[in-house]
Amino acid sequence: MPIIRGTLIRGYAADVRRRLAERLTDAVAATLHAPLDAITVVFEEVDADSYMRGRTPRSPGAALRPAGDIVLEFLRLMEARDLDGARRHLSPDFEMVFPGPTNGTRMTRLEDLVAFSAPRYRFVRKTVDSVNESHSGTTTTVFVSGTLHGEQPDGTPFADVRFIDRFEVEAEKIRRQEVWNDLATALRPAT
Amino acid sequence: MPIIRGTLIRGYAADVRRRLAERLTDAVAATLHAPLDAITVVFEEVDADSYMRGRTPRSPGAALRPAGDIVLEFLRLMEARDLDGARRHLSPDFEMVFPGPTNGTRMTRLEDLVAFSAPRYRFVRKTVDSVNESHSGTTTTVFVSGTLHGEQPDGTPFADVRFIDRFEVEAEKIRRQEVWNDLATALRPAT
Amino acid sequence: MPIIRGTLIRGYAADVRRRLAERLTDAVAATLHAPLDAITVVFEEVDADSYMRGRTPRSPGAALRPAGDIVLEFLRLMEARDLDGARRHLSPDFEMVFPGPTNGTRMTRLEDLVAFSAPRYRFVRKTVDSVNESHSGTTTTVFVSGTLHGEQPDGTPFADVRFIDRFEVEAEKIRRQEVWNDLATALRPAT
Amino acid sequence: MPIIRGTLIRGYAADVRRRLAERLTDAVAATLHAPLDAITVVFEEVDADSYMRGRTPRSPGAALRPAGDIVLEFLRLMEARDLDGARRHLSPDFEMVFPGPTNGTRMTRLEDLVAFSAPRYRFVRKTVDSVNESHSGTTTTVFVSGTLHGEQPDGTPFADVRFIDRFEVEAEKIRRQEVWNDLATALRPAT
Amino acid sequence: MPIIRGTLIRGYAADVRRRLAERLTDAVAATLHAPLDAITVVFEEVDADSYMRGRTPRSPGAALRPAGDIVLEFLRLMEARDLDGARRHLSPDFEMVFPGPTNGTRMTRLEDLVAFSAPRYRFVRKTVDSVNESHSGTTTTVFVSGTLHGEQPDGTPFADVRFIDRFEVEAEKIRRQEVWNDLATALRPAT
Amino acid sequence: MPIIRGTLIRGYAADVRRRLAERLTDAVAATLHAPLDAITVVFEEVDADSYMRGRTPRSPGAALRPAGDIVLEFLRLMEARDLDGARRHLSPDFEMVFPGPTNGTRMTRLEDLVAFSAPRYRFVRKTVDSVNESHSGTTTTVFVSGTLHGEQPDGTPFADVRFIDRFEVEAEKIRRQEVWNDLATALRPAT
Repeated sequence: MPIIRGTLIRGYAADVRRRLAERLTDAVAATLHAPLDAITVVFEEVDADSYMRGRTPRSPGAALRPAGDIVLEFLRLMEARDLDGARRHLSPDFEMVFPGPTNGTRMTRLEDLVAFSAPRYRFVRKTVDSVNESHSGTTTTVFVSGTLHGEQPDGTPFADVRFIDRFEVEAEKIRRQEVWNDLATALRPAT
Repeated sequence: MPIIRGTLIRGYAADVRRRLAERLTDAVAATLHAPLDAITVVFEEVDADSYMRGRTPRSPGAALRPAGDIVLEFLRLMEARDLDGARRHLSPDFEMVFPGPTNGTRMTRLEDLVAFSAPRYRFVRKTVDSVNESHSGTTTTVFVSGTLHGEQPDGTPFADVRFIDRFEVEAEKIRRQEVWNDLATALRPAT
Repeated sequence: MPIIRGTLIRGYAADVRRRLAERLTDAVAATLHAPLDAITVVFEEVDADSYMRGRTPRSPGAALRPAGDIVLEFLRLMEARDLDGARRHLSPDFEMVFPGPTNGTRMTRLEDLVAFSAPRYRFVRKTVDSVNESHSGTTTTVFVSGTLHGEQPDGTPFADVRFIDRFEVEAEKIRRQEVWNDLATALRPAT
Repeated sequence: MPIIRGTLIRGYAADVRRRLAERLTDAVAATLHAPLDAITVVFEEVDADSYMRGRTPRSPGAALRPAGDIVLEFLRLMEARDLDGARRHLSPDFEMVFPGPTNGTRMTRLEDLVAFSAPRYRFVRKTVDSVNESHSGTTTTVFVSGTLHGEQPDGTPFADVRFIDRFEVEAEKIRRQEVWNDLATALRPAT
Repeated sequence: MPIIRGTLIRGYAADVRRRLAERLTDAVAATLHAPLDAITVVFEEVDADSYMRGRTPRSPGAALRPAGDIVLEFLRLMEARDLDGARRHLSPDFEMVFPGPTNGTRMTRLEDLVAFSAPRYRFVRKTVDSVNESHSGTTTTVFVSGTLHGEQPDGTPFADVRFIDRFEVEAEKIRRQEVWNDLATALRPAT
Repeated sequence: MPIIRGTLIRGYAADVRRRLAERLTDAVAATLHAPLDAITVVFEEVDADSYMRGRTPRSPGAALRPAGDIVLEFLRLMEARDLDGARRHLSPDFEMVFPGPTNGTRMTRLEDLVAFSAPRYRFVRKTVDSVNESHSGTTTTVFVSGTLHGEQPDGTPFADVRFIDRFEVEAEKIRRQEVWNDLATALRPAT
């Protein structure tokens, strides 16, 4: 039954307002047991001249690119080993954690990841099954799950190996990547 | 700069309104590049007598228990091997996927999971580092990550083994659990 | 899809707010081709202390008794020949128009109506099928239709004779009654 | 004192908004004892891109043609005996009830009405004094009253004969017409 | 924390809306102990077609020229002894009060002021330090303070003489001017 | 025609809301040429639990005591020579300016003012004719005008001597007092 009304300074593109309306709808649907059809979201757009905070006119904040899109582009660039392109999506304090025995394997440079992967696979490709964004304050945590396929260093192909990546994104930059997958199980010599 | 106003039928507890206000704030902060302090959320509560949709008075939908809380309670019950308690949180079509070579190991009954675990560890405990909820329509996807510690079947202890679980929750019931962890890497015989 | 929000000074009874919400819904449904379920009406009630017009606090106007109720009570009182009771519902400039050859038979006093009726029927009772209110500015026009039954002066009973009355009501007083029926057709000597 | 605010998806013509504002004003004036000048109606028009219900963008419902206009056009077409034109305004389950001794004379086909009228008058014209719309849910009941003039079958003219018609209209189609008038009184042989 | 929303008929220039937003902000800041940054003012502009009061469409009232600007222009015209120009800013019941022993010296005609000034100074110029508007109902009281400099009748210059003028302005016309200054102290023969 | 709606956290006393509504009305009336009766101010009060800014619940700011009341009390205390009481209304950087030949006589301590007055009058009382507040940001400038009466040092009474005081008040403390009056004119020896 809830009605959500947002007051926005005019100027946001239709797809931004649509994305915002979906997310506000989702916030309500996650909190109250209402049929989706009973949730209405409306934006009242006002001229910048008609908005003042602190006795000062304000300009609208820019729209943020969806964190999920940024993460998918980063993964594509990494698959293509375009490290320079991928690096543009990283914040200065970027850290990544890959599988490893004690608290995983921590790295901060993409070159280290390339070295880390060399003995594990010749190449790997992701088939993405799900992308989820979790919003909290100014941080969006993005989860990407699906399966890996590729070739082991000796050329043996592998496929249908489950993975999940967890990314923390703030202000359109990736601050942290955590990786889990079944490669150790899938590629381990039969026992 | 956005102002979000929600119209609610009076009767939601303060913590429900607070949770909803946080989530609406998060939805805005994830979409627009506004300083958090510039995002205002206000609820106007109206009497049920003062609300009508379709020429019919409406009652407010119940508040939903946070999906993250449900998932954490399910995990606690499973650690304690209280299968009956845990089962109360599952929807009839519950499915779980644990690590395994090809698309993981799929199970639908908690008893099967107990059997699956027996050769892997005597017991396992989770230290939870993060819980994230991702809201989309009436489904909330919950991600829990952290580290495992416990004992292998032969009594050898293990610790600091990274894990992540992905849960799909709808209407307060868990429909799906997917599990990834570094156990295969951590416990594999040294090579 | 429309959302109608009314700001009211707190203090109107629940049934008044419900009646107002129904009428606002009806106003929308009569004007826009929206499914009824897509029309939402919400009242925000504010304290009298929180309302000012013309730099002056205002008290809420009293609720009006539904004009249809007033008319039905007037008709009941007339059937019971309680002229004093009926007269209390009339405005000083009350006029009524009953069937007649040229622009009907005009009367202003209830006593004249009693005299007018004497040669036509010994008594008459109304079975009401429909009551409709038509709102325009501060005047409500009420239409009551149904059938008459009763006895002719010679005791011959009659029934199922269609009638319709049109009333103009303002500020809870009836200003005008116009009457049409099939009595002339129903009671005329067979030709 | 009430303020009524409607949220509409942008796109309704000025006369539609004006009609809606009048009807909302009327709904308030019929319910609360407020001076007309104290009733304010405002429409906030939002872009279709800024409106979402059930997580789905919505298009505005079309405006409905005023039921009173439809009825008056139907009456004009019937006076001109343009039965095809008149029929376009009728719903498939159209029924009409004309004066008659027991519950009136019921007909469903316009041709039957023509036959019914033949022995009663050569032609008839309506002078309309009042048109009232009564709104309830998706049905509008329209009342038209005034006087008839015309010629009896033998050429004798008649005039100033009161009439009232009651129409039920839904989704721009007439479902029911009920007719009352003083013809039987006016044209009956003097007694 | 307060949010002030104004509904305006579209058509006011940006500087008028800005001035109104500043004044509404000031009204809040003078009443509640809120940091200025926590006061938000938003105007929702609606089409004239989307606004109705008393069942009648309304046109927006014209914007008023700031009373402070009118007063400053009047003072400039008086300094230049453009009495005709100055007079255009006066209401018919204009009165002015200049320093004097008992309740000051009252005059109604600008010519009288010129005569009053002749023995006091050859010319005088104002350096304006502050202009304050005080709003109450439809009257704005304007206060202008600063210092005077000029020449005494004998050519002796004077400067840094404090003054304050109080003006009552209604509907863009000055109704009253009251003048205080330190001339008597500054120009009095040393004692 | 404007409608001003304020959203307030519930808890402000009725007289605070009334004062705020008056001031908002005044802000509109000073800016737009609307009849006072066409200006409506409404406050929607929401629970503190229903308000969040920056993802943080907020408490309502305290109401400010009207600056005009503070100034009048300060003047009363000074007339009574209750310097301690008067001092409680002053901010640490308080300055006052009294009549004097060049930019007036500046003082910062109330004791200095007492000394300054001694040769001028034995006592003085104010008859207040007008109190005006001018609001700008967090500063309120208060103007008090009227007449003085009292006794000269030699016991000669005086009366009807015009005065005006200008006060700058912020956060309920007086930061600056400026004084003008006709004493020099009124009390000067006849020439």
